[in-house]
Amino acid sequence: MNVKLRPEKYLKYLYLPNLFGTTRTKEILSVNPTLVPERREATEIFVSVYDYNGDNVEESHLNNVSDALRYRDSKKISWINIDGLRKADVELVCTHFGIHPLIMEDILSVDQRPKMDEVEGIMYCLLNMLYFNNTKKTVETEQISIVLGPDFVISFQEDASRDAFDSIRSKMKIAKSQVRQRTADYLMYGMLDLIVDNYFIVMESLGEQIEGLEEEVVRKSNTRSLARINQLRKEMIILKRNIAPVRDLVGGIIRSESELLDDRTTKYFKDVYDHIVQAFDLSENYRDVMMSMQDLYVSNVNLRLNEVMKVMTIVTCLLAPATVIGGIFGMNFDIIPYAHHQWGFYFAVAGMLLVPLVMLYIFKRRGWF
Amino acid sequence: MNVKLRPEKYLKYLYLPNLFGTTRTKEILSVNPTLVPERREATEIFVSVYDYNGDNVEESHLNNVSDALRYRDSKKISWINIDGLRKADVELVCTHFGIHPLIMEDILSVDQRPKMDEVEGIMYCLLNMLYFNNTKKTVETEQISIVLGPDFVISFQEDASRDAFDSIRSKMKIAKSQVRQRTADYLMYGMLDLIVDNYFIVMESLGEQIEGLEEEVVRKSNTRSLARINQLRKEMIILKRNIAPVRDLVGGIIRSESELLDDRTTKYFKDVYDHIVQAFDLSENYRDVMMSMQDLYVSNVNLRLNEVMKVMTIVTCLLAPATVIGGIFGMNFDIIPYAHHQWGFYFAVAGMLLVPLVMLYIFKRRGWF
Amino acid sequence: MNVKLRPEKYLKYLYLPNLFGTTRTKEILSVNPTLVPERREATEIFVSVYDYNGDNVEESHLNNVSDALRYRDSKKISWINIDGLRKADVELVCTHFGIHPLIMEDILSVDQRPKMDEVEGIMYCLLNMLYFNNTKKTVETEQISIVLGPDFVISFQEDASRDAFDSIRSKMKIAKSQVRQRTADYLMYGMLDLIVDNYFIVMESLGEQIEGLEEEVVRKSNTRSLARINQLRKEMIILKRNIAPVRDLVGGIIRSESELLDDRTTKYFKDVYDHIVQAFDLSENYRDVMMSMQDLYVSNVNLRLNEVMKVMTIVTCLLAPATVIGGIFGMNFDIIPYAHHQWGFYFAVAGMLLVPLVMLYIFKRRGWF
Amino acid sequence: MNVKLRPEKYLKYLYLPNLFGTTRTKEILSVNPTLVPERREATEIFVSVYDYNGDNVEESHLNNVSDALRYRDSKKISWINIDGLRKADVELVCTHFGIHPLIMEDILSVDQRPKMDEVEGIMYCLLNMLYFNNTKKTVETEQISIVLGPDFVISFQEDASRDAFDSIRSKMKIAKSQVRQRTADYLMYGMLDLIVDNYFIVMESLGEQIEGLEEEVVRKSNTRSLARINQLRKEMIILKRNIAPVRDLVGGIIRSESELLDDRTTKYFKDVYDHIVQAFDLSENYRDVMMSMQDLYVSNVNLRLNEVMKVMTIVTCLLAPATVIGGIFGMNFDIIPYAHHQWGFYFAVAGMLLVPLVMLYIFKRRGWF
Amino acid sequence: MNVKLRPEKYLKYLYLPNLFGTTRTKEILSVNPTLVPERREATEIFVSVYDYNGDNVEESHLNNVSDALRYRDSKKISWINIDGLRKADVELVCTHFGIHPLIMEDILSVDQRPKMDEVEGIMYCLLNMLYFNNTKKTVETEQISIVLGPDFVISFQEDASRDAFDSIRSKMKIAKSQVRQRTADYLMYGMLDLIVDNYFIVMESLGEQIEGLEEEVVRKSNTRSLARINQLRKEMIILKRNIAPVRDLVGGIIRSESELLDDRTTKYFKDVYDHIVQAFDLSENYRDVMMSMQDLYVSNVNLRLNEVMKVMTIVTCLLAPATVIGGIFGMNFDIIPYAHHQWGFYFAVAGMLLVPLVMLYIFKRRGWF
Repeated sequence: MNVKLRPEKYLKYLYLPNLFGTTRTKEILSVNPTLVPERREATEIFVSVYDYNGDNVEESHLNNVSDALRYRDSKKISWINIDGLRKADVELVCTHFGIHPLIMEDILSVDQRPKMDEVEGIMYCLLNMLYFNNTKKTVETEQISIVLGPDFVISFQEDASRDAFDSIRSKMKIAKSQVRQRTADYLMYGMLDLIVDNYFIVMESLGEQIEGLEEEVVRKSNTRSLARINQLRKEMIILKRNIAPVRDLVGGIIRSESELLDDRTTKYFKDVYDHIVQAFDLSENYRDVMMSMQDLYVSNVNLRLNEVMKVMTIVTCLLAPATVIGGIFGMNFDIIPYAHHQWGFYFAVAGMLLVPLVMLYIFKRRGWF
Repeated sequence: MNVKLRPEKYLKYLYLPNLFGTTRTKEILSVNPTLVPERREATEIFVSVYDYNGDNVEESHLNNVSDALRYRDSKKISWINIDGLRKADVELVCTHFGIHPLIMEDILSVDQRPKMDEVEGIMYCLLNMLYFNNTKKTVETEQISIVLGPDFVISFQEDASRDAFDSIRSKMKIAKSQVRQRTADYLMYGMLDLIVDNYFIVMESLGEQIEGLEEEVVRKSNTRSLARINQLRKEMIILKRNIAPVRDLVGGIIRSESELLDDRTTKYFKDVYDHIVQAFDLSENYRDVMMSMQDLYVSNVNLRLNEVMKVMTIVTCLLAPATVIGGIFGMNFDIIPYAHHQWGFYFAVAGMLLVPLVMLYIFKRRGWF
Repeated sequence: MNVKLRPEKYLKYLYLPNLFGTTRTKEILSVNPTLVPERREATEIFVSVYDYNGDNVEESHLNNVSDALRYRDSKKISWINIDGLRKADVELVCTHFGIHPLIMEDILSVDQRPKMDEVEGIMYCLLNMLYFNNTKKTVETEQISIVLGPDFVISFQEDASRDAFDSIRSKMKIAKSQVRQRTADYLMYGMLDLIVDNYFIVMESLGEQIEGLEEEVVRKSNTRSLARINQLRKEMIILKRNIAPVRDLVGGIIRSESELLDDRTTKYFKDVYDHIVQAFDLSENYRDVMMSMQDLYVSNVNLRLNEVMKVMTIVTCLLAPATVIGGIFGMNFDIIPYAHHQWGFYFAVAGMLLVPLVMLYIFKRRGWF
Repeated sequence: MNVKLRPEKYLKYLYLPNLFGTTRTKEILSVNPTLVPERREATEIFVSVYDYNGDNVEESHLNNVSDALRYRDSKKISWINIDGLRKADVELVCTHFGIHPLIMEDILSVDQRPKMDEVEGIMYCLLNMLYFNNTKKTVETEQISIVLGPDFVISFQEDASRDAFDSIRSKMKIAKSQVRQRTADYLMYGMLDLIVDNYFIVMESLGEQIEGLEEEVVRKSNTRSLARINQLRKEMIILKRNIAPVRDLVGGIIRSESELLDDRTTKYFKDVYDHIVQAFDLSENYRDVMMSMQDLYVSNVNLRLNEVMKVMTIVTCLLAPATVIGGIFGMNFDIIPYAHHQWGFYFAVAGMLLVPLVMLYIFKRRGWF
Repeated sequence: MNVKLRPEKYLKYLYLPNLFGTTRTKEILSVNPTLVPERREATEIFVSVYDYNGDNVEESHLNNVSDALRYRDSKKISWINIDGLRKADVELVCTHFGIHPLIMEDILSVDQRPKMDEVEGIMYCLLNMLYFNNTKKTVETEQISIVLGPDFVISFQEDASRDAFDSIRSKMKIAKSQVRQRTADYLMYGMLDLIVDNYFIVMESLGEQIEGLEEEVVRKSNTRSLARINQLRKEMIILKRNIAPVRDLVGGIIRSESELLDDRTTKYFKDVYDHIVQAFDLSENYRDVMMSMQDLYVSNVNLRLNEVMKVMTIVTCLLAPATVIGGIFGMNFDIIPYAHHQWGFYFAVAGMLLVPLVMLYIFKRRGWF
């Protein structure tokens, strides 16, 4: 018996669910946006404020939100960015800036679908920043809320440890940059643009995974490649879930006739819209490639099965006559032709070799190799 | 022969249809909303009335509907909740409160599709509360009718033994709660919100089933996992059937320009709409995961078949030459080379071992292990 | 050879196309609505007339249409129902009641798609009554035309031997029934409602078929279950073909601003619309269940193949070493170890048994049983 | 070896691509509507003119288009039908009748998608007459252009050897026929009606093919049935490509508010629209039946594989013990039990028969037959 | 052992990913339109200017853009074509001609989705010229930007080494050509028409690939055909990605009520629209054919597996009895019937031949050949 019982084999069976990412399934499926209490209070919170206009900018970094409230009355545009979500803080800010309780609930919610809302002169966008975790090979999300008022923008980020808006900050320091020269809605545009652009970066990482996987599937189709196909399909679900509604979100902003939006900014939102549509198209392409890979996997497994069957057939066919001939001359009859002949044995063995050769020739002609 | 005839095996074949939930199929397919007489009269009936405004609330629990009729003329908002449906009761209530006969028919109907209607100044919503039965692993439905009039809300629940609106009742007791402060349509919103939120809880339970099943499919793909995939697909049908039309229902309320709806309540209905859209999206994700699992199951079965074929091929190939060699030297010829040699037997056996080793080497190089 | 040549087997091959319902395919595919002459003249014709209003009703049963023409000038609402279609009769009636030649053509047509039309103050509906033939297990259709004029309704039924409108007739006799109290369009509503309700009854019968088939597929997946899956898919096509356009038909009536329709009747048509939408949803569910069953069938066939392969592998593996050992000691060498030993034979046989036992143990541990 | 090398076998491999209709693929795929020069000049050309009104009709058959030009100024309606397309002729006619150069290009184009256009008071329809070629079993197309002016209709047919409009010609001769009594647009309706009606005839022929193929697939699923399934799928593509855009074409005519269209003709175009919608629905049904047949084919092939595997397993299992028993008593030990016994041989053979019988019994109980 | 270890075999495994075009996957998936800096500066740049009206045309070929700027003020229509993109050049031109910075960004972008924009009196189209690379068998794209102003058209082409607009240049030289006689928008139409027409040429090349592949799949279905199916599916994605948005682009131009568009040009754009719709339809047909081929491939592989299994079964069945008979008479019992008979050996061998013949007859009757 040539089957080895290596210990890794047993471990493999133990690790299988892990390999197939079944815990990831839990994360995908158990979404419940209506349960507010699930959100854990952030342990740290970082507040940064940019109070700016075309002429000057005042930058301050605070450790609590109450110091940021006074910017409501500044004559300049105020961008208050809050990294880390705590219920009390959000309530304080929302009450002070006149933000409707329903929006407040959305800011604090977990696993929300991206959405845009306009309530009582305040525009609200909720969407997710995506990151690709290279270790776990998964798409991670960070919920981001953007509140646009007449002369302020308040952005809430879920995770205090990473910040999405650095490139906007560097533009803030340049007086001639568009963001300094224009109204608050342009700042919101800048944020949306940055988030949407990030989708492409995440998709690029996913694309690399798909590409590597395709090479693996082509070379050898085993349980591990099946597991990876399965995993990537789950990440696709996460991706699609985040990109598709953002299209409606940006479309909603363009169609909205809010007074918060400057006419000159509209074409910038249209630009974001073009990008998100392309991101959506691209995610469809990803799906097509994944489908094609799944088909490839199945076809490959079948082809291999076929090859195995071919070998079996050939071996069976080639050796069967030899066995029969051996059996014939092994019978215990008194009179067996050529039994006492000098070359009898060699004739029989020659027959055993000749028959398979003839069969090989026939198989070749039938195109079985 | 190594095949055991265990009694469980026979039982398994008897229980198969049960395992695959074929009776569930009957429940799914034989829906007939037009046959009113099918509904069985409730044996028990519980009526609870909340007659409330911002200042005070009068709570009463009755055992028949006729005592509830007098609330029609109260100056406050009356919420009459009727657990358990009896034809006579429903007719009595509908006639007294001026509810159109067609709505009355819908309240009494069975297996209706969720729908919203507005007839003669009365708004009517029919939808299903979903429960996940953890024993049978099925999604159960309870039909709920909500009738909204100018200053009353009447809710009908099919099943007297379970009640869906407890959390609203507790809010009723708090004078400052929104539901007490606002008009009757806010109460209807509260009910819809509760029902839609419940969908997520049911989906979470289903999600756990899917997740557990996925682990099972990954580890071993047998008849039982096939049965469970089949069962879950049926529950998905139930889920989709209940969620998809509710989207139209809530959308219809938002678009409706009924005088029954306060402008301030609209954004709350929009919030419910966001949730039901997300529930729908999520149910699509569930479907994707199920599809992916079905594919995984098939691929796994194929992979296993492949592995079996590989072993067969190898065993056949390895042992076939030995059989042939044995046959060769078992022939009854007078002159067999090495027959009288001292080491003849051992040479032959060595050949029987050597050929398979060479073949093993070749197979390894071809990458068949 | 253990394969029996039972006569039923040969017959089975002869009956195969019948089993798979290939003649049914012909009926499904060769639809040609433009060929009027195909319709065979009815041999019998039954005409029933109800001339009614809220106060009294005159019922008459005639054997030719000419006697019915005089009801055109009655002051009451006339419902003329014609069972059995003859070209001359239809032309006579249409000319007399001022019905456009194109409608006349539609009444006489065969295999028409359900449609609604309004020409010169006459509303026309063509749709199919469905019946489930329990013997052939097929869905049968009977084309029904309903012509609505200002104070008359003329209904044409294809098949004189069965009548669809009995329940309306019984309501006709009750003076207080809605149909007597209201205008002619309510009578048309009653007919449509009856036909749509009947769809659910047909679907229920189909559902029973599906359910029984599912049980069969679960227990044993053979040619016969394949044939039945195939047959049911064809009935699904018939069903969908009849239900889908009726949705547009009823929707068209609701949107139509015809003077023939009383405002108070609209909500009844909306009720029919709800039902037809639900019938359509349900037919989609049927399709899902069928798809799921087809997958189940394929998976089951695969699982069985797998089981067979497993047995083959095991038998082959277990017996192969025994054959080799037998071959080894069957070789005709002079010096064979243990050949002259007292227990030599038993040692060899013991080896033949021991090796398979070791292999069995290994297979068990690899989880192949 | 029992495999025969019949010459037809080799021929079969040579004819395979032909059998699968791979040249047909070329025709389907290499459509290029923008290359005008591809059209070959017709060698023959037939021109027929009907100059008619309700009172009289003048019929003339010409061999060149220039003689037809004078009908432009006739007071009656002129129908000029040109069988066979030559660039010079088309240009001559178009210039004379004031038809825009873009329409002229469309008339001369090849493989155009059916379309409707209205340019400068001229309505233009391009669509394909379909024929089913019973020899090649393919759907053939003939491009037909219909130009409608205020009092003329010019029809261009690609193929001079077949003519599509004979039935209209016979109606032309009857003074009381609708086509004679009405305006030019009615003549165009007549043509469209005829072409659409022809789709049903082609579909009927295709349906017969499908039906015959289904019977073949049911009886035996071999390479030839696979080839025919493949071929029919290609014809479906041709069919769908021609029917789908005609729906838009006729819909466009109905919606068009052209002065060329008489109000009384609209309902006739609606009738054509009903027919083309039904043709489209039917082609969807065809697709469903084809899908179902493809599934049937695959299932059938699998079932057969399964049956083969079953026989293999059984034969292998049944004969293996006999081989082992033979091997046991064939060993060359001195002491073999029962070797010298009178019935030894018969006991062994009896054992060889008994073991398979026990195995057969077990297999039967496991339900493997 | 009949398996050869040819060196090409090993090389085949090395080249597999190349064969399957996995690097192509990278190109398809890693699209990121938001990263402007990725574009490499063109090393060469060719500028050609046609300053024309109906009377005369001035043609000049320049090596830098600055010389072209002066044409802004010419009274004639100026067509400036720039082959090769450099950031500085594009900025210079855009600033001089008053083109919005967002358009400038789009011109410089990489991997953009085709789009149409109208900003501040300038119409902008971005789309891709497609080429079929016959060596690599891939679809290549060249991004083309067309800027339409009141009396100028500026076209930017990505690749200086190939030029798409030669046929327009030759028409430029003919004073009576439409392009010379009409306004600037007609020139843009000409360009779009040329690009769309080119899609058909690319599709034709792809069609030839598909057709050749189909023949290969029909004859022999191996790893190479699987690889080619996979590759072609990727090219289909590229094709679809480029054609689908162009439909919206041209539709947008037609619906746009820009003053840049002459009423007389609209019908030409409609013509382009017809072509792009047909290209889209055709690409759908391509997809159908590819799907059908994939199914064909799988069916073919299955059929072949089936044939192999059939041969195995037959060989196994036919030779098994011979082996058993050989074993029976090879047993070392003292008393073996016919052992000492003169014809004993020949009877046994005759039995070995007879049993297979009977089996063959049975198999034939069961229809297994």
